[in-house]
Amino acid sequence: MFWICFALFLAACFAAGATGGLFPPGDWYKSLRKPGFTPPNWAFPVVWTTLYFCMAYAGALAAMVPGNGIAMALWSVQIALNGLWTPVFFGLRKMRLGLLVLALLWLSVAVSVVALWALDWRAGALFVPYLVWVSIAGALNWSVIRLNPDVAVQDPA
Amino acid sequence: MFWICFALFLAACFAAGATGGLFPPGDWYKSLRKPGFTPPNWAFPVVWTTLYFCMAYAGALAAMVPGNGIAMALWSVQIALNGLWTPVFFGLRKMRLGLLVLALLWLSVAVSVVALWALDWRAGALFVPYLVWVSIAGALNWSVIRLNPDVAVQDPA
Repeated sequence: MFWICFALFLAACFAAGATGGLFPPGDWYKSLRKPGFTPPNWAFPVVWTTLYFCMAYAGALAAMVPGNGIAMALWSVQIALNGLWTPVFFGLRKMRLGLLVLALLWLSVAVSVVALWALDWRAGALFVPYLVWVSIAGALNWSVIRLNPDVAVQDPA
Repeated sequence: MFWICFALFLAACFAAGATGGLFPPGDWYKSLRKPGFTPPNWAFPVVWTTLYFCMAYAGALAAMVPGNGIAMALWSVQIALNGLWTPVFFGLRKMRLGLLVLALLWLSVAVSVVALWALDWRAGALFVPYLVWVSIAGALNWSVIRLNPDVAVQDPA
């Protein structure tokens, strides 16, 4: 039961993560001015893949515990928002709308840490690196808007 | 507890559904040859909004039942795939890859009907209209590929 849940949550992660391969950063992102703390391009798929395994394991741990309703609903909210950012930022190049999506994602992940921890502290702890990474992604998105006001201004969002 | 879960699942639905507004069909879709059973454009947001409420209610019902792990994991899988189709089909215009996403979505929804029904028959029943609509969407995607081989062939997927 645990491993079936783990496999399903992992499938959900990779469905959301497929957007990363479908909407690659490309020349547009390369041409943007970026802050000093920008992680190298190779880091993104490596970090995300690691996070997916943590997220799926956390989901499966929580799935085993009675009274998991809110934590399970939050898991669904964060994965839906997770899959939305890449098409918005790299597909539509809407940097401000991307930041709004990241803000909502950050909030859903932060609340998920609390809800998961209440069920099983290991599940909550497994979401902490995810929260850290979304914080970095948010700071990066925000900095890119600040450093490229001429590009951001094209964004009708 | 029930209504908090309902609101969260509904938020997940609208996060996935936001892709519908962000990647509108536009002139490209209008120019495609479509089968006789194609629903009018206005039907899509109306049907999807109705389905979102059914899906969220089903999720909240299942969230209340102990032993809901697999059903909850499946709910996450279907919402991640749900949000993927629109950027693939209307954003990237990859019709064949869109059909693959719909096939996986159909499978996840079909298995969800069974898993939800086992917890609470009402939750399973609320997913049946969703399965019907995804079947129609799949037939439409398939027909559009068949009727527009010149356009589909541009699709590198």
